[in-house]
Amino acid sequence: MKTIDINSDLAEGYGVAYIAGDDDAMLSIVTSANVACGFHAGDPEIMARTFKTAKERGVAIGAHPGYPDLWGFGRRRIPYSLGEIERLIAYQLGAAQALAAYSGHRITFVKGHGAIGNITEVDRSVADAVVRAVKAVDPSLTMLTIARSKQVEAAESAGLRFISEIYADRGYGPNGAMIPRGQPGALVKDPKEAADRVVAMVEANAVITTDGTHLPTEIRSVCVHGDSPEAVGTARLVRQRLEAAGFKVTPFSPA
Amino acid sequence: MKTIDINSDLAEGYGVAYIAGDDDAMLSIVTSANVACGFHAGDPEIMARTFKTAKERGVAIGAHPGYPDLWGFGRRRIPYSLGEIERLIAYQLGAAQALAAYSGHRITFVKGHGAIGNITEVDRSVADAVVRAVKAVDPSLTMLTIARSKQVEAAESAGLRFISEIYADRGYGPNGAMIPRGQPGALVKDPKEAADRVVAMVEANAVITTDGTHLPTEIRSVCVHGDSPEAVGTARLVRQRLEAAGFKVTPFSPA
Amino acid sequence: MKTIDINSDLAEGYGVAYIAGDDDAMLSIVTSANVACGFHAGDPEIMARTFKTAKERGVAIGAHPGYPDLWGFGRRRIPYSLGEIERLIAYQLGAAQALAAYSGHRITFVKGHGAIGNITEVDRSVADAVVRAVKAVDPSLTMLTIARSKQVEAAESAGLRFISEIYADRGYGPNGAMIPRGQPGALVKDPKEAADRVVAMVEANAVITTDGTHLPTEIRSVCVHGDSPEAVGTARLVRQRLEAAGFKVTPFSPA
Amino acid sequence: MKTIDINSDLAEGYGVAYIAGDDDAMLSIVTSANVACGFHAGDPEIMARTFKTAKERGVAIGAHPGYPDLWGFGRRRIPYSLGEIERLIAYQLGAAQALAAYSGHRITFVKGHGAIGNITEVDRSVADAVVRAVKAVDPSLTMLTIARSKQVEAAESAGLRFISEIYADRGYGPNGAMIPRGQPGALVKDPKEAADRVVAMVEANAVITTDGTHLPTEIRSVCVHGDSPEAVGTARLVRQRLEAAGFKVTPFSPA
Repeated sequence: MKTIDINSDLAEGYGVAYIAGDDDAMLSIVTSANVACGFHAGDPEIMARTFKTAKERGVAIGAHPGYPDLWGFGRRRIPYSLGEIERLIAYQLGAAQALAAYSGHRITFVKGHGAIGNITEVDRSVADAVVRAVKAVDPSLTMLTIARSKQVEAAESAGLRFISEIYADRGYGPNGAMIPRGQPGALVKDPKEAADRVVAMVEANAVITTDGTHLPTEIRSVCVHGDSPEAVGTARLVRQRLEAAGFKVTPFSPA
Repeated sequence: MKTIDINSDLAEGYGVAYIAGDDDAMLSIVTSANVACGFHAGDPEIMARTFKTAKERGVAIGAHPGYPDLWGFGRRRIPYSLGEIERLIAYQLGAAQALAAYSGHRITFVKGHGAIGNITEVDRSVADAVVRAVKAVDPSLTMLTIARSKQVEAAESAGLRFISEIYADRGYGPNGAMIPRGQPGALVKDPKEAADRVVAMVEANAVITTDGTHLPTEIRSVCVHGDSPEAVGTARLVRQRLEAAGFKVTPFSPA
Repeated sequence: MKTIDINSDLAEGYGVAYIAGDDDAMLSIVTSANVACGFHAGDPEIMARTFKTAKERGVAIGAHPGYPDLWGFGRRRIPYSLGEIERLIAYQLGAAQALAAYSGHRITFVKGHGAIGNITEVDRSVADAVVRAVKAVDPSLTMLTIARSKQVEAAESAGLRFISEIYADRGYGPNGAMIPRGQPGALVKDPKEAADRVVAMVEANAVITTDGTHLPTEIRSVCVHGDSPEAVGTARLVRQRLEAAGFKVTPFSPA
Repeated sequence: MKTIDINSDLAEGYGVAYIAGDDDAMLSIVTSANVACGFHAGDPEIMARTFKTAKERGVAIGAHPGYPDLWGFGRRRIPYSLGEIERLIAYQLGAAQALAAYSGHRITFVKGHGAIGNITEVDRSVADAVVRAVKAVDPSLTMLTIARSKQVEAAESAGLRFISEIYADRGYGPNGAMIPRGQPGALVKDPKEAADRVVAMVEANAVITTDGTHLPTEIRSVCVHGDSPEAVGTARLVRQRLEAAGFKVTPFSPA
């Protein structure tokens, strides 16, 4: 039986007042949780709580480090040197590992958040910096990489295990890269269409571009969002369709 | 040959503009560095830099976690539950472990900073919470404890290794506890007097109170400060006197 | 025609990711907006946006300063001296005044948030400190005070204008003080009951305790919450009932 | 008698542990203090303390707003929109005005810090945004502008009063702009040379470039630094030389 993983960004709240998304619902849908590590979102409370629930439900956990930028939610391109990026990745990864141990679970993968994710999709030198940090802290970790991105090259070159993901709600341009937000075709808003496209790409083991071209890639995970009621519905539909298509939905890196 | 360790709080700067103390000088005097972990002071840059220099000079490193309180430098008694304290300790400890690995060094001990240190000196329930967090993250770590405090009881009860320290510049009251700051006799300001008292206590393996009573305690480390030019001089004198008295100054928990 | 004001805590989001409550809906119900000033919640963006919408809808605006405690949403009792409280109030008040001017509106009142509100309800010395700060910055401002609290005494003693409020969803004990959260009778959860009680108290110009005693107080404003869908419904019902009872709902301190 | 002002960036500490520069010494040398407003440095305590001392010594005070970036000390070019810059300037300016009133003093000018200063030196659209914010909050304020920069054009165009400054320790290139740090001639390190150049430029009422060209500009203030012992000595020497040359050193915008 073919397997596929579904991942989502979770624990993106902060402090006693701020939540972002319905984490409880998402932890019943996804098989991998990318957990915010306290710099762009998250705090020790929501991290530990998420790890505990993930453990109870058989959901794998990954560190989802971002820039120290609560105001901008880690999406702004703040100028950091490669060395600074290495160290802020290492810091957050270690914090997540320790809280996972405290919560009875274990971090098995890493995925960069926001600006880190966007930059490393296309910039090999920053992708290498992220990989260097992860490798220095724990070379047994898996990198969750955007299919066909510089993240893949960096992990492969460093000898780190990686698996590639597609995004359920994003369109892919002719070169196989996600169409930037704000441009036509960037977002797939209809849940049914999103789910259909996911199944098609996962079955074809290829990124399918807006013009129908198949770019072969081993796809092991699908990223879904959970920060709106509609998003949760889309995530649920994606899972149902994948299961209906004969896939076993299961973590790519179980603890 | 008898051995003794000298420890100091380091990496207490923040960002590109703020420093606190002459870390470079202190890393040539002490044998153990208590490294701020980013909540009350410290950031990934100064942490990694301190770990690297400590490694080069044979200085052991410990996590020195504090309350998330940059404004108050971790000294204010902000109301946290025991569970919250566990999780903010675990988070910071993990961050320090990862940055130590990244820097080629290894965390071997933990010592609470500021309000955490002050509260756990006398409050067993909070001391237990700190120990629970450390044990959950890594039970091979040593607790650096204030001699004769609740920290000792908590570590012993949990089966964690611990070693006890005295403070070079603090007076001890009749009960063997440090005289609170602001009260007469709290501070030993004369460097020579401070160094003499340290040697006397370490040789006697006892806390010596202001009235001359000896309270037997195995003393394995001496805490010195480095946040003023005078403090560095005192630290240097303490080390010289201990060596002159025949002690080998060496880390209690080498990496 | 008798008049009454309805106030609510608004602008309690932070940065690009965090919102707290349906501010747009509330700004169509209330006549006074207590605006978070960036220390426990709020930032320049949401503050300016709220001031602008309030201006357009004829809603009066007040500064709602809190402790610098985003993590704890300003509800934790962090130890500040009276002088520190004065200065953190002055800072936030000035920031709000400037952003109001920038937005074409004007701050006319001040109400303390969270721990500041709770402490000044019962502690005269802290209530005096808050009033000192406000008076030093702008003695023409009105204090929005909890009915029958130390806040009233402090404002009156300093010669600052004040008006008193009741809470729509809180029960009042025999002494006329709000029953602390967590105790029986603290919260009035049924919207209809809350609205009925508000009308009864405003008509009687008295705090009505749980045992039915009337404690005469001039009530000029009613505080409602907006941070849940139900809360918005309750707020709307309170306004409808007050209007049905013949009150004109209007700001107590228009700009 | 000809007059000249000397200004310096002050109140750049943070919280109980971090200081930056010898503010007390500088407040005996300068006639205008640019006070950090809490975003890149500063907090209500150090701001109020600085305002009080400045008042006692006849030193004028200005708001010195920066990006919300304590980590990077406001020097990093974080991507903000023009509108966001307007609002973060307005917020900080108001906070400073209120704390000045609280401290018995009055803000009379504004000067952008770090990245804001650097960008507005050359980028007219951002310089306009800063001026719009200041004008909306208080059109009676003076802009302290870098001589011959876009800051001058923006203030002039908006009808805001402005006065221009030169830097005691910086070299000026052929176009009259400061030579960027890191390039040859950027810094004038010798105190005597710095003081001589200041006197020459102020007497000539011109920026004097490294090749000796005089670019006529009305110079009303000289910026000196105070964040090292040597810097304080240079500042003192600059003042002495200006006085010896017959200038009265006095605030350009007294309260």
